[in-house]
Amino acid sequence: MILDVDTGVDDACALLLAALHPDLDLRAVTCVGGNAPLADVVRNTLTVLTTAGRDDVPVAAGADRPLLEDPVDARHVHGQDGMGDLDWPVAARAADDRHAVELLRDHLLAAAATGERVTLIPLAPLTNIALLLRTYPAVAQGIERILFMGGAAAVGNATASAEFNIFHDPEAAAIVFDSCADLGITLGMYGLDVFYEPRITRAQAAELIAADPQGPAGLAGRLVTFQCDRFGGESATIGDAGAVAAVIAPDSLTTSKLPARVELTGRYTRGRTIVDHRDWSGDLTHDPHGQSDVIVDVALAVD
Amino acid sequence: MILDVDTGVDDACALLLAALHPDLDLRAVTCVGGNAPLADVVRNTLTVLTTAGRDDVPVAAGADRPLLEDPVDARHVHGQDGMGDLDWPVAARAADDRHAVELLRDHLLAAAATGERVTLIPLAPLTNIALLLRTYPAVAQGIERILFMGGAAAVGNATASAEFNIFHDPEAAAIVFDSCADLGITLGMYGLDVFYEPRITRAQAAELIAADPQGPAGLAGRLVTFQCDRFGGESATIGDAGAVAAVIAPDSLTTSKLPARVELTGRYTRGRTIVDHRDWSGDLTHDPHGQSDVIVDVALAVD
Amino acid sequence: MILDVDTGVDDACALLLAALHPDLDLRAVTCVGGNAPLADVVRNTLTVLTTAGRDDVPVAAGADRPLLEDPVDARHVHGQDGMGDLDWPVAARAADDRHAVELLRDHLLAAAATGERVTLIPLAPLTNIALLLRTYPAVAQGIERILFMGGAAAVGNATASAEFNIFHDPEAAAIVFDSCADLGITLGMYGLDVFYEPRITRAQAAELIAADPQGPAGLAGRLVTFQCDRFGGESATIGDAGAVAAVIAPDSLTTSKLPARVELTGRYTRGRTIVDHRDWSGDLTHDPHGQSDVIVDVALAVD
Amino acid sequence: MILDVDTGVDDACALLLAALHPDLDLRAVTCVGGNAPLADVVRNTLTVLTTAGRDDVPVAAGADRPLLEDPVDARHVHGQDGMGDLDWPVAARAADDRHAVELLRDHLLAAAATGERVTLIPLAPLTNIALLLRTYPAVAQGIERILFMGGAAAVGNATASAEFNIFHDPEAAAIVFDSCADLGITLGMYGLDVFYEPRITRAQAAELIAADPQGPAGLAGRLVTFQCDRFGGESATIGDAGAVAAVIAPDSLTTSKLPARVELTGRYTRGRTIVDHRDWSGDLTHDPHGQSDVIVDVALAVD
Ligand SMILES: [Ca+2]
Ligand SMILES: [Ca+2]
Ligand SMILES: [Ca+2]
Ligand SMILES: [Ca+2]
Repeated sequence: MILDVDTGVDDACALLLAALHPDLDLRAVTCVGGNAPLADVVRNTLTVLTTAGRDDVPVAAGADRPLLEDPVDARHVHGQDGMGDLDWPVAARAADDRHAVELLRDHLLAAAATGERVTLIPLAPLTNIALLLRTYPAVAQGIERILFMGGAAAVGNATASAEFNIFHDPEAAAIVFDSCADLGITLGMYGLDVFYEPRITRAQAAELIAADPQGPAGLAGRLVTFQCDRFGGESATIGDAGAVAAVIAPDSLTTSKLPARVELTGRYTRGRTIVDHRDWSGDLTHDPHGQSDVIVDVALAVD
Repeated sequence: MILDVDTGVDDACALLLAALHPDLDLRAVTCVGGNAPLADVVRNTLTVLTTAGRDDVPVAAGADRPLLEDPVDARHVHGQDGMGDLDWPVAARAADDRHAVELLRDHLLAAAATGERVTLIPLAPLTNIALLLRTYPAVAQGIERILFMGGAAAVGNATASAEFNIFHDPEAAAIVFDSCADLGITLGMYGLDVFYEPRITRAQAAELIAADPQGPAGLAGRLVTFQCDRFGGESATIGDAGAVAAVIAPDSLTTSKLPARVELTGRYTRGRTIVDHRDWSGDLTHDPHGQSDVIVDVALAVD
Repeated sequence: MILDVDTGVDDACALLLAALHPDLDLRAVTCVGGNAPLADVVRNTLTVLTTAGRDDVPVAAGADRPLLEDPVDARHVHGQDGMGDLDWPVAARAADDRHAVELLRDHLLAAAATGERVTLIPLAPLTNIALLLRTYPAVAQGIERILFMGGAAAVGNATASAEFNIFHDPEAAAIVFDSCADLGITLGMYGLDVFYEPRITRAQAAELIAADPQGPAGLAGRLVTFQCDRFGGESATIGDAGAVAAVIAPDSLTTSKLPARVELTGRYTRGRTIVDHRDWSGDLTHDPHGQSDVIVDVALAVD
Repeated sequence: MILDVDTGVDDACALLLAALHPDLDLRAVTCVGGNAPLADVVRNTLTVLTTAGRDDVPVAAGADRPLLEDPVDARHVHGQDGMGDLDWPVAARAADDRHAVELLRDHLLAAAATGERVTLIPLAPLTNIALLLRTYPAVAQGIERILFMGGAAAVGNATASAEFNIFHDPEAAAIVFDSCADLGITLGMYGLDVFYEPRITRAQAAELIAADPQGPAGLAGRLVTFQCDRFGGESATIGDAGAVAAVIAPDSLTTSKLPARVELTGRYTRGRTIVDHRDWSGDLTHDPHGQSDVIVDVALAVD
């Protein structure tokens, strides 16, 4: 498994889960500018992995901005350091010399050469993945599937139509959708239709902190507490970690393979993931757009 | 109550209900090109009203095409005559000399002058209503509310994003949304989120035909039978008649006042009614579109 | 000849020319909100016609705002009264009771009934004309041609792409383009490619004022002086009056019949009149848009 | 100088000029899918360089398709082999192992390290350059300027609005425009406003062939003859070679530094390069788009 992240409070929990769960084999982590500026994302990611005792996992910096949209600064949401301003000790090591796109290419082509397949989990704007697939399409042979956190079949959060990760780089998302269809890559969407449902309570977070104050459980507990404080509730969504959990326990989600597209040009719908629930076995020849060639496995409900 | 129709099998049932229900006062019917060409719509509308014994209700022809979209011919769906090819006897009388926009203006300004308010129920593309509100905005004083059949908060039917009536004339819909906000007109949307739910069975239709073969019940029964045949089921939605029923029994619907917009410019979302379910009491200042000024009372469920 | 105006300094000069030139037969003037609010436009138009001794020409108020765009207030450009704040005596008479669309319909259908044809000259956003053509398409039989001031084959003024009259109501312009093609109406465009060229000097304006201080020449002279002051030059374009002049002396313009469209959906090109100069006798089958069905007689140069 | 090409008849002439002109130092050539599929482009490019005796110039294959648009096949225009089907002997050597984006990165970072600056001349859709600038923005330090063949200030050729290279990958063009402004790279546009003017005659082509039948002059002559045949004229534009010529003799062009943008979302204007000729020293505060941050040195006339 390789994660692409913009750590980010949500991504930090997902990283901890991916780094430590016995069923998972975290091979590399790539970073992209998003919730926080790229340099902060890299530092935060290294810090989380060091906390998890996973300095063996290479980390690479990638795109520092979206393809066409202006960069967004969400520090008012994720804290000045992008990870809750916890004063957590910073990692000693540095990132890989390679660009994220090259690190991904090297791992995926190596996997392809040995007949392996790696699951790619982007938890951030899809800029790195779009650059990867358009520059090195041969990596498709090394990809088991791409399961991204983002999008929404029903309603958005960035706008009434669009979810944040897609809205921050709609062209990247459209490229990933199109590339997966072109290159035969299985694409899964873990979006807002399920994102807010798996939750952890403030009490559970306190137990985590008590059990292991300076270790990964403690970090996870503090991040959850930060989220509870930020939204003023007694529990918080596990957020991006839900996409990692979906790999561990796929039966926990109801998913459906549906035609989908990314809208790029709408005045109010730019960045919307259009998921088509209609029955295409009926007569839909009147539809000027036809059925999308892109079939996405959309998570629709948490069981 | 005034209906604006593109009769149309669905509209015919709605007209029968509006013409005959004791709680309703049907004042006029205006016609617009849509499901069928305008001349067919006018003929079908007059035929339905004559069958209902309501030759007192004036009928006027309006726009023969959408503002910008090409006209659509749905005769393969609604039959060659646009109303199920039932060979039903045609009405003897002719339409009013006035254009639909003038008939609406005259009725609504007359109502305004006496302090009355009329409910306007469009069951077709909103071309006539858009022309009315932009040409004669003073009619707002005579309108109780506009409750239109069309749109969708969730998924579309014409496309994955858009419902047919809105898709056939998106600019007209956008004008109506904007005008209602500008002019203080209450706007209700009876769309796909509820449209398919109130149903009538083939057996019920047979009873209606048996009870009154040549009368309005018989016509309604035959139209329902046509719909069952067309979609190959044992029951059919009551369709446009649901919007009229919603006036008779408003408690049968769960509705919610929500910010809404019509998308005009999306490659795949043109004609979508964007209904905003987000909690605007939270911080949505990041949203570049802001909250829509247009608040629509959206029917979300049938009780 | 009928003028549709948003008087407006430019329109005032055009009205004087149309009202007084011996070769022209000014039948009616309709007003639309644009450079100034509708009430000001009507007052200014009546004032100009009274000054010209043409109280016989009916004037009607039309649309007070564009179809979809927000109304624009250009009082900082045209003065508080929309006509240069000249303190010119206001007309005694009032506008016609009919809406502009009805006045146009009545004149054009009357012309059609007698086999006449009237030239229609819109010098403002095309809202009234769009409402007219979509509500009463039969008026086409009474129209000799429509020659509008607006658009640009090369560069815009409202934006880099669009001219003001089209930019203020792009949907109306698109409707007029489409209707003219549908209904067989000859459409001429007097746009920015020629608009700035016919000029009158400050000295010529002074002569006009001296010759007839309180009469139409004096008003014209003062309006030109206002324009010279506004743009800080020794001469001013005759502006909208150029379109009227083009009817009087058609040979003064080089025009070309070219395929054209109005762009509605571009982020930076909304309101652009796309004039196609390519050689369609060659192979343009690669063009996904095909050739426009709308052929416009575009004024490209002043001789 | 580095060229990015989709060889292509036009590009072949440009390559010959860049490879052989004594004032130029051709360092590398990168290839992109466009006029011909990528494999053909690479083979043609190697062939041209071998003919020119320049096997020292590295050639790398890049993107095989646009970022979002579908790939285009123009073999009906450029011949089955993409270069006029001349049966010209194919080069013996193969392309560099690196991806075009990496070859560009390596050359440009090396230049930056030594304080050099390289001129980059894209003669094809801008996919490679967009991937380069978004993946490795630090290359900006090694770029003297980017002078691309493409775009149009006036009218298009692919559509009425857009030129082919931009139309084939509008997002790539928009990324290059934006990146150049962001990263301080000088951007020049050699587009349709000048493209068709520098011409070479069929007779001149025959002289080239006679002088050196199997050498570079002979190849150039045959390519020009192919172009004359294809368009049925006695002369042909020198095409992409004009952009190389503009580096050799910059005074041969009239250029102007103007604000510019790439339109992505217009129904009929997608791919248009909007060049703003307005006087921004005047009051253009009404323009909702404001002045573009991107200033392009646009070639407007050939002297
Ligand atoms: Ca994230
Ligand atoms: Ca209907
Ligand atoms: Ca005007
Ligand atoms: Ca080329």
